[in-house]
Amino acid sequence: MTPDTIFPASRKRPVATADAVPPGEDVAAMVRDLGRKARTAAATLATLPAETRRAGLRAAAATVRDRAGPIADANTQDMAAARTKGLTAAMLDRLELTPKRIEAMARGLEDIAALPDPVGRILARWEQPNGLRFERVSVPLGVIGVIYESRPNVTADAGGLCVKAGNAAILRGGSESFHSSAAIVDALRDGFAGAGVPADAVQRIPTTDRAAVGALLRLHDHVDVIVPRGGRSLIERVMEEARVPVFAHLDGLCHVYLHASADPDMARAIALNAKMRRTGICGAAETLLVDRAIAERLLPPVLDDLIAAGCAIRGDTTVCALEPRATPATEDDWSTEYLDAILSVRVVDGLDAAIDHINRYGSHHTDSIVAADRDAAERFLRDVDSAIVLHNASTQFADGGEFGFGAEIGISTGKMHARGPVGVEQLTGFNYRVRGTGQVRPA
Amino acid sequence: MTPDTIFPASRKRPVATADAVPPGEDVAAMVRDLGRKARTAAATLATLPAETRRAGLRAAAATVRDRAGPIADANTQDMAAARTKGLTAAMLDRLELTPKRIEAMARGLEDIAALPDPVGRILARWEQPNGLRFERVSVPLGVIGVIYESRPNVTADAGGLCVKAGNAAILRGGSESFHSSAAIVDALRDGFAGAGVPADAVQRIPTTDRAAVGALLRLHDHVDVIVPRGGRSLIERVMEEARVPVFAHLDGLCHVYLHASADPDMARAIALNAKMRRTGICGAAETLLVDRAIAERLLPPVLDDLIAAGCAIRGDTTVCALEPRATPATEDDWSTEYLDAILSVRVVDGLDAAIDHINRYGSHHTDSIVAADRDAAERFLRDVDSAIVLHNASTQFADGGEFGFGAEIGISTGKMHARGPVGVEQLTGFNYRVRGTGQVRPA
Repeated sequence: MTPDTIFPASRKRPVATADAVPPGEDVAAMVRDLGRKARTAAATLATLPAETRRAGLRAAAATVRDRAGPIADANTQDMAAARTKGLTAAMLDRLELTPKRIEAMARGLEDIAALPDPVGRILARWEQPNGLRFERVSVPLGVIGVIYESRPNVTADAGGLCVKAGNAAILRGGSESFHSSAAIVDALRDGFAGAGVPADAVQRIPTTDRAAVGALLRLHDHVDVIVPRGGRSLIERVMEEARVPVFAHLDGLCHVYLHASADPDMARAIALNAKMRRTGICGAAETLLVDRAIAERLLPPVLDDLIAAGCAIRGDTTVCALEPRATPATEDDWSTEYLDAILSVRVVDGLDAAIDHINRYGSHHTDSIVAADRDAAERFLRDVDSAIVLHNASTQFADGGEFGFGAEIGISTGKMHARGPVGVEQLTGFNYRVRGTGQVRPA
Repeated sequence: MTPDTIFPASRKRPVATADAVPPGEDVAAMVRDLGRKARTAAATLATLPAETRRAGLRAAAATVRDRAGPIADANTQDMAAARTKGLTAAMLDRLELTPKRIEAMARGLEDIAALPDPVGRILARWEQPNGLRFERVSVPLGVIGVIYESRPNVTADAGGLCVKAGNAAILRGGSESFHSSAAIVDALRDGFAGAGVPADAVQRIPTTDRAAVGALLRLHDHVDVIVPRGGRSLIERVMEEARVPVFAHLDGLCHVYLHASADPDMARAIALNAKMRRTGICGAAETLLVDRAIAERLLPPVLDDLIAAGCAIRGDTTVCALEPRATPATEDDWSTEYLDAILSVRVVDGLDAAIDHINRYGSHHTDSIVAADRDAAERFLRDVDSAIVLHNASTQFADGGEFGFGAEIGISTGKMHARGPVGVEQLTGFNYRVRGTGQVRPA
């Protein structure tokens, strides 16, 4: 799941707020109206020059900076409500917008502004024998609905990324960050409007009524794709209810496989980093596979490192025999995404067994082989069916920034359109532009 | 809609057949079993060399040829049932498999075999400052469900295209072509098996029970994308019920716009061809827009050509004043896909008005401008939000073959992943392959 889920689904309850839709007003009609406005804004955005979108993002950043006070005040309201509701200290920390975090949001928008423009790239070009000249050109997707349960800064990131790619965004943040998100969206809109970008390029759903999410998920006339960011229950609800395409991120059940040819020091460093650098992100390793041929020699130092760093080990019988501090793994462990300092460890009989295990139990997210044998590595890269496959590198590189994409709106575990990190390029589609000299199609 | 819809939805009724699931057997369980087998076949297909898939397709073509007799016999059964049900002569013609049509199916499979391999293409390659080397590589999508109501030859085309791209296919043809499709699938499977390609690369749903379609649409564990080919009611059902991505083809409401700078002879030729070459295909023009500045001079000869070819004209007041044989268009005409020898014609006040009309009333499928003015043409190509935009060419080029894609499985009006003609390239996705030298991610 995404790293920034603050609130378990069970805690998500509509809260009464000043901005909520008045009783009796039709939530679906309200969402449809947002959709219509977004569609109109998207049509304008699609024809704006790159420089205008860039200027809009810079102006939005400046407005966020100017409004640091009001944004912090809105956040204070959310924090007070969250304390009343008894949120944990960790949840409160994620919700809080310090001056440093507000400045980071503004800088994030400037970084997005500075990215190469993803719209109007010529992706392919060819000519047919009849003289027709074809181009495939990147174009905005249109209207993107973003549903998140996360830190309020996602509001600025997601809105900025959508607009960079020429799309209009409809944002639906978590109810706990309702006022913070509202203040941030206001800043973005005012910044855009002053720079010639339609304010409706970013809209938010002004209610915490969950029926609004359902309405958004079914708005196929006015929404081109939904990007959910949150816990499994949110993603599953979105996938079940959506009548529009979804860039969904399901589990990140990532593996590190230590091949018999692995360099021992590299194996130790990668296993430790892949699991323990951060345990709560989707690219964190959850299972370590080790070739039987090297298990006795390599596992003790690898597991020593991990245990010293605070990791619990759940091993198969061979692992438990080698490492008394390991507890026995059950069948469920091979398909469990711990997102915690726990690692399941299994000894396998070579490359094929490792690939089979990963394709069977993994989530097709990110998997790495450590091997000096290049042929083995190439087979692994070819045959493991995952969005990201690595050779001699940590799974924690599964991140748009590490790919050089700049900011990402999420990581997609689907296979359609976007797979892996979803950056501004993945927020565009394409069309075909065909230039002729009067060609008609023969009967 | 697609050109090959034979049967209106109202005529689709389950028919009792020898192959139908026995009463009491769970259709959903049967479809799940097909899905599991397809997933296993897809895993094998993904690792087969291009040459093996190619050999499998050639062997399938040879088997179709060898089995021309049994395939024709199966078709005779379908034809007899169709006559009993009172299908029209046109419907019967589409259902019939003549020796020539069976040979064309075999040749179609050989053409698909001969296409460049779409799997394993390096789509992008870059290196990050930390030395990680990234590649984005095309990979099969996995399992593709194809639901069609069309000529039985789609069975061979769709199965062949899926396998060419390394995917397993689950086919669900129309009930009227049940026996024909069964015989064709048997030939494909036997051909594959003899050449080292898993027979389960192509499976069919062995029942006409419509509940099987619902089960397939919800099989998100084992189906990666659904391609529906058929009438609007089928597409709408699929979009409503599917819990997996869909490459859907909605309306083809295509426009030809005659700009003030249009060459008169070219305008006449393109307008006539775009409407009348074939009126029943999705790329056929449904609305003609003409600049006011040239309407009086250009419309009479353009409409003369069309009317002489048997086309009915529904015009706005200016058009009706210029052409007494035109009948008045209503507001509905601008959003009607006739798929017939009828054309709505409107006079517009220049380029912006034409673009607005197309983006408002069109279906974002295929639209063409006829213009000598290059700036006007480039604005049209940039600002019309359609899958295919053309300058000085007929809309009837909206076809994978005309694009040079070889065979197509359909045309997608969605914006995700595949837009426009869906050929073998569009039946692949990608993953990222990252090669390192021991990199770990800094804290």
